[in-house]
This record gives sequence, C-alpha cells and structure tokens, in this order.
Amino acid sequence: MKFKIAVVQFKTGDSQEDNLTRVSALIRKAAGNKAELVVLPEMFNCPYRNDFFPVFAESFPGKTTSALADLAKELGIYLIGGSIPEQDGNELFNTSFIFDRSGEVIGKHRKAHLFDVCIENGICFKESETLVAGDKFTVVDTDLGKIGVAICYDMRFPELIRKMALTGAKLIVVPAAFNMTTGPAHWHLTARSRALDNQVYFIAASPARDYEGVYTAFGHSLLVNPWGTIVAEAGEAETILYGEVDYSYLDKVRAELPLLQHRREELY
Amino acid sequence: MKFKIAVVQFKTGDSQEDNLTRVSALIRKAAGNKAELVVLPEMFNCPYRNDFFPVFAESFPGKTTSALADLAKELGIYLIGGSIPEQDGNELFNTSFIFDRSGEVIGKHRKAHLFDVCIENGICFKESETLVAGDKFTVVDTDLGKIGVAICYDMRFPELIRKMALTGAKLIVVPAAFNMTTGPAHWHLTARSRALDNQVYFIAASPARDYEGVYTAFGHSLLVNPWGTIVAEAGEAETILYGEVDYSYLDKVRAELPLLQHRREELY
Repeated sequence: MKFKIAVVQFKTGDSQEDNLTRVSALIRKAAGNKAELVVLPEMFNCPYRNDFFPVFAESFPGKTTSALADLAKELGIYLIGGSIPEQDGNELFNTSFIFDRSGEVIGKHRKAHLFDVCIENGICFKESETLVAGDKFTVVDTDLGKIGVAICYDMRFPELIRKMALTGAKLIVVPAAFNMTTGPAHWHLTARSRALDNQVYFIAASPARDYEGVYTAFGHSLLVNPWGTIVAEAGEAETILYGEVDYSYLDKVRAELPLLQHRREELY
Repeated sequence: MKFKIAVVQFKTGDSQEDNLTRVSALIRKAAGNKAELVVLPEMFNCPYRNDFFPVFAESFPGKTTSALADLAKELGIYLIGGSIPEQDGNELFNTSFIFDRSGEVIGKHRKAHLFDVCIENGICFKESETLVAGDKFTVVDTDLGKIGVAICYDMRFPELIRKMALTGAKLIVVPAAFNMTTGPAHWHLTARSRALDNQVYFIAASPARDYEGVYTAFGHSLLVNPWGTIVAEAGEAETILYGEVDYSYLDKVRAELPLLQHRREELY
C-alpha cells in the first residue's frame, strides 16, 4: 500500500482565529494535492510558552477540535491535529487529537514526557509548570495501517517508539517543536534512528521557524523511511511538505534486515 | 574523571602470527601515548567469513587471549580485545575478552545478536551457519567506571544499550565490523543515537577498510560523546584513533537534559 502524506509546517501566531483560518486553508490545499494523511505541528494554535497554555486551552469538544473534525470529514482525510493545550477539569495537557475520514476522533495522545530541561547557553523550559503528563502510549487503527502518535520530547525515548512498533504501528507521527538548541543537534538524528531501529516510516512535524515569534522552532519537518533515509524534508519557512509512504518498501527492509525478529527480549 | 582512550583500527590479515605481532605493536604504541583503555575491532585476528571462524577458533586460554593478557599487564592498561572466534566444547562464539590492568579477564561478551542478513545488491551474511549466540549482556566494573561491551550487530538493538546504561555503564564499547552496505547507511547514525539516547560515551571500533581482503569493513572508528557529537573519528586506513572521555561532561549533559530521569517505565 502506498499513500501520500502532508505535513503543514505552520507558522503559529498569537490569534486563535487567524491561526485557524490560515491552517484550514493549508489543510485544504494539502488534501487538494491528494494527501490522505495531513499532520500539524505541536501547539499549532497556541504560542509555545507556559503563560499562553492556560489562556489558549480548550476543552473537548472545542473550537479548534470542531474545526479540525469538520475539515477531516469535508476532505475525507486522516488529520493528526498537531497538539493543543487541552483543559480537562483543573488539569492541562499537551494533546494531539486524531481524526478519521468521517471527522471522528479515533485517538487522543497526551504528551507523556514533559519537556523540563535547562541547557547552559541554550533552551530553558519547564512544561510541568503548567502541564500534566499523559499516562499512555497511542496507536490508532486506520485504513492506512496502524499509526503511532507521540509528541515532541516523547520521541527522545526509544522504549516508547519501540512499544508502538511492536504494537503494529508501521508509521509513527510526531508533532513536535524542537528549538534552536536541540534542533540542530538532535532533530534529524533522533527521527532517523527511530525510523531505522524500528523499521517504520517516521514523520516529525515542526512549526515554521519564526525569529519574531514567542518561540523559535527549528523547522525542517521530515519524513524518514524504514532504512533511516530522509525522503522528504522542509526548510525553515511555512510550507506544506509532501511525501510518500510505501509499505511494500517497509516489508522489503524488514525481510532483508530482520531487526524486529532478531530482538532477544529475554536479555533486556 | 578524564582519561584517554585508543582504538586500534586494525587491518586484519589471514595469518594469526602476523596479526598478533602487528596488533601488539599498535597496542604498545597506544599505551605509550598514554591511552588507559585500548580497544580492538571485531574479529581482529580472523578474517570475517564463516569458513575462517572454525579454523581460527581458540579455546580460552589460548594464544591470542594470553598475548592480550600479557600486554594489558605489561602496559598497565584496560584492553578490550575486540573479538575472536571462541571455541567452547562443540560450540563457536564471537567473543570479546576484557582484560584489566593486571591482565586478568574481568569480562567476556559473546555476541548476542547474530548477523543474519541479506540485502539486495548488498551484504549477505549468515553468522548462525557457524556461530552460536551469547545469552547475556556485559557490563564490567573498572577504575575507569562501569563499561558496557557489545559486538557489532548487538548495537542495532536499543534495548541492549539501554540495559547497560541503566546498569550504570557510562562508557559503551562496541568492537564491530560494519560492511560497505550498512556502514555508509547506518554506522554514524546508530553510534550517535545510542550515545545521545543513553547519555553515555560510545566507542565503535572497526577494522581498517581492505578492498583486497576477505571482507571489506567500513572503517571510521568513532568516539561519540553523551550529547551525540562525534569527538574523534578515524578514516578508512589502519590507524590508532585517540580520544578523551570526560565524565564531568557526561554529568553536565545528564543534569541539563535529564533523559534517563524522565523515562516513564510504567508506559512501555
């Protein structure tokens, strides 16, 4: 099975209305170009900073999730809605809602590893000041195969991605917003090694780089194939990245280099 | 703690005598240049092909291990003896013997994942035709900290390297012999991601590239730091690669980007 994917490398602004208008046009364009799966980046509708999360948070169903549901249904696509700050009672999560072709929510991933890091002369961020971590991993069943979804810092943890692959995910999608410290150092390396080790297609979806914005994301959204090769890569600017997923190639890689079969679970 | 390491990127020939003579001179040279830990590549004393393994196999103690033990003691170094075909009863293993400064064997790793792959227009090899897989992971305690040892294809398995790191290894050493298919595609990527994900120093030790030999290894022996950066890299030819391991830098990386602390074991 082959299908076309698209990543909307979106330039997030500080107006929810304007973000929704602009991102909707880009999703329509991607679907018009025959993408069957469209992916948005992390916090595509909220500037990535702790003081914005409570202000922009939405309960489900809310304005953003309803707009995405309507688009998925109208366009007949799978839509992995990046992430938004989700309000649930008194708690806030960094949540990715996943919509099928009829606009139904078929999965919801709450970021399970919060980004609490502080690097000398680099990024300092503490998501746990406002957010609560999710407590599960997420694999959804679709007519495009099983798809795993994680968010940004989650992809740093090989166990999580392995768990998805062992659950049957052949495509793993990670809305993310790496920064200008860890992006140049680790973005390509981490995406490529997860794809290679697990012999899956791997999509890492970033916002566009915006030096004037609240947060400067690295950009360079990627599609990596199961051999660890980057098959599509965006630059820094707002754009739609297209690529092809081909499960017959995945099957070939797994037959020739049978890593998943060669695991020795009793040793680890 | 800081210390100097050396990798002998050795050009393996088909004479055991000659190999031992030449590799001994290189080990002496490395120690003379103040390396406290010297690493040899996989099958440094046996051409890497199934028909050679039974012919070159040695029981322990044998000519090769005794020579290495004597060198470690004479030079007062830790010596990770690449690997040799080890005969144990009727079975053959691909085994790395690890010697301390007094020449004692403090660990022995038997390759736990056998290299049985066949890639179209690329490498085709089936170690299991002659070899038996080991059944444990290997971490040794030294005055240079805990050191994990694995062999070549073992490094493809993130669970194994993670297990070593969680057992306390801060340096992971992998005698290997990637080939001209998987070397260019995956050698740097795999070494760097294991170092980064586990925030360890990582040594990948290759034989020199030899287009005339029985097997053409990729070369490019590496030392990678816990940020995933290559801090020393050999070319293709026979050489001694030197580098510095600095655990205060490792501690800094782990404090700033606390990946091992942020694991959520209950989710995987």
